[in-house]
Amino acid sequence: MAFQNIKVAIIGAGTIGLSFAALHLMKNPNCTVTLYDTRPDLKEYMEAKLPQFLVDADVKECTSRVSTTVSMAEAVADANIVQEQGPENACFKRKAWSRIELDAPRDALFWSSTSGIPASEQSMDMEDQTRLVVVHPYNPPHIMPLLEVVPSPSTSQGVIDRTLEYWRSLGRVPVLIRKECTGFVANRLAFALFREACSLVAQGMVGVEDLDAVVQASMGPRWAVAGPFKSYHAGGGEGGLGSFMDKIGGTVQECWNASDEDVKAGGIVVGKKWQEDICRQTEEAYGVVDTAERDLKTKAVLEAVSR
Amino acid sequence: MAFQNIKVAIIGAGTIGLSFAALHLMKNPNCTVTLYDTRPDLKEYMEAKLPQFLVDADVKECTSRVSTTVSMAEAVADANIVQEQGPENACFKRKAWSRIELDAPRDALFWSSTSGIPASEQSMDMEDQTRLVVVHPYNPPHIMPLLEVVPSPSTSQGVIDRTLEYWRSLGRVPVLIRKECTGFVANRLAFALFREACSLVAQGMVGVEDLDAVVQASMGPRWAVAGPFKSYHAGGGEGGLGSFMDKIGGTVQECWNASDEDVKAGGIVVGKKWQEDICRQTEEAYGVVDTAERDLKTKAVLEAVSR
Repeated sequence: MAFQNIKVAIIGAGTIGLSFAALHLMKNPNCTVTLYDTRPDLKEYMEAKLPQFLVDADVKECTSRVSTTVSMAEAVADANIVQEQGPENACFKRKAWSRIELDAPRDALFWSSTSGIPASEQSMDMEDQTRLVVVHPYNPPHIMPLLEVVPSPSTSQGVIDRTLEYWRSLGRVPVLIRKECTGFVANRLAFALFREACSLVAQGMVGVEDLDAVVQASMGPRWAVAGPFKSYHAGGGEGGLGSFMDKIGGTVQECWNASDEDVKAGGIVVGKKWQEDICRQTEEAYGVVDTAERDLKTKAVLEAVSR
Repeated sequence: MAFQNIKVAIIGAGTIGLSFAALHLMKNPNCTVTLYDTRPDLKEYMEAKLPQFLVDADVKECTSRVSTTVSMAEAVADANIVQEQGPENACFKRKAWSRIELDAPRDALFWSSTSGIPASEQSMDMEDQTRLVVVHPYNPPHIMPLLEVVPSPSTSQGVIDRTLEYWRSLGRVPVLIRKECTGFVANRLAFALFREACSLVAQGMVGVEDLDAVVQASMGPRWAVAGPFKSYHAGGGEGGLGSFMDKIGGTVQECWNASDEDVKAGGIVVGKKWQEDICRQTEEAYGVVDTAERDLKTKAVLEAVSR
């Protein structure tokens, strides 16, 4: 294995940073992790928080492979992978990468966890813009297998290949996104459904909790097993997706037309009046969500699919 | 239990009819099912096909509670529930219900499995329009827990209540949809994501198989456990969905704007050129989908969630 005994520098020790640190430690038994953050209590904070992310793992052994530092130069000095999840701020990231480039080894992989600032923008001040690629997780990464790998037009094929290879070797699902686009792919898909959900609730078809129940009892479990194309391809029987579209296409188009009308009429635009009502309904329905329970169930679902 | 020893008449023995028959037989141990269809080989057909739907059940015992008939009047004569999945044709359904109304007991529940013809339209020729309600499954109903219960404005509260109660007593997830709307709720949500999926593939962001991988490794398993509102509510931390929208709302709106542009520019309209390419890609990726394997995995996912 090419990725054994490697050193991972985690830049930014927020929730995503700790979750990624835990993922490397749990899935890559000989790696070491250096956690960089500017907070003065970094070591105590890490010792208190990291164990929550080390699900079903030997917490003591895993934490024995972590060190902390408040010097970014020190964190990246001998790193094989530098994984950044600092503030979602283009200036911060541009500055950080141009410094990291000077301090890290020549062949270290540079990954940003950004959900929206493309590698082409982050790498603008770098000497060698071929080195940076976005690796966008679906939160939390220590549970969810997806990693959207989004290169800039300058990212080298070698960097892309080694990035995909690393994540595959850890049993994750890295997916190469071919063009830098707003929101990448996962959020674009999820937000499209979320907009329709907001529209249907705003129109009074169904409440927030019932809408969630619809999803949890239908497309959630279905799409955990087979994504939308595979599902509708199966739904078309022998003729596949083509037959599905021949038979159901009229209904699909009617639904799309109705959605367009409703979204326009209902003003489903962020910050408008519908939002307040939906936030209130959601708060009433759920209060504080037990994310530990959610993560355990999600893990069980993923295990059920992969059996 | 109010629903023990009941008689269910299944009108139309296609895939959905057989799946519903199997569901009643498996989940309601003392019920009997009468299968009505016009096909002359109905008995042999049922005996050959029904066992495929009786997953993890005593096939012999279940089939011992099924009878077949080519007379609709006979099928409904002493039924407690009449469940219709005939052709998706408003004329057929209007005629069928006005006949069933004459032949079935006064207090029988009348359910249509239609995916698009509302109860208000189907019941137009009925003497008593309060009796009919749509019970729309997510296919196949013997596996998927969701049932969208969609009354017309005339449907009586008693019919709605007994319908919900029956499905809850069988451990399913009936969800009351408050207004008759195009596509009801589940398909509206799924088709909204499907449109975005088609748009992103048509733009070359990602291929069909990789898009499915994105969904299977992220929102599929997540939404199997917690629907979109609950998920984003958790994502907002202590402030819930309101905080989520405060923090991420800008990105959400940017994604919605990008979607609108792409859907318009790409002409994501059913039957246009993009469709052919996506159908071909899907066929190449999957060939014939093993739905039995898919259903077994889906069942395991549902069990993992409910544990």
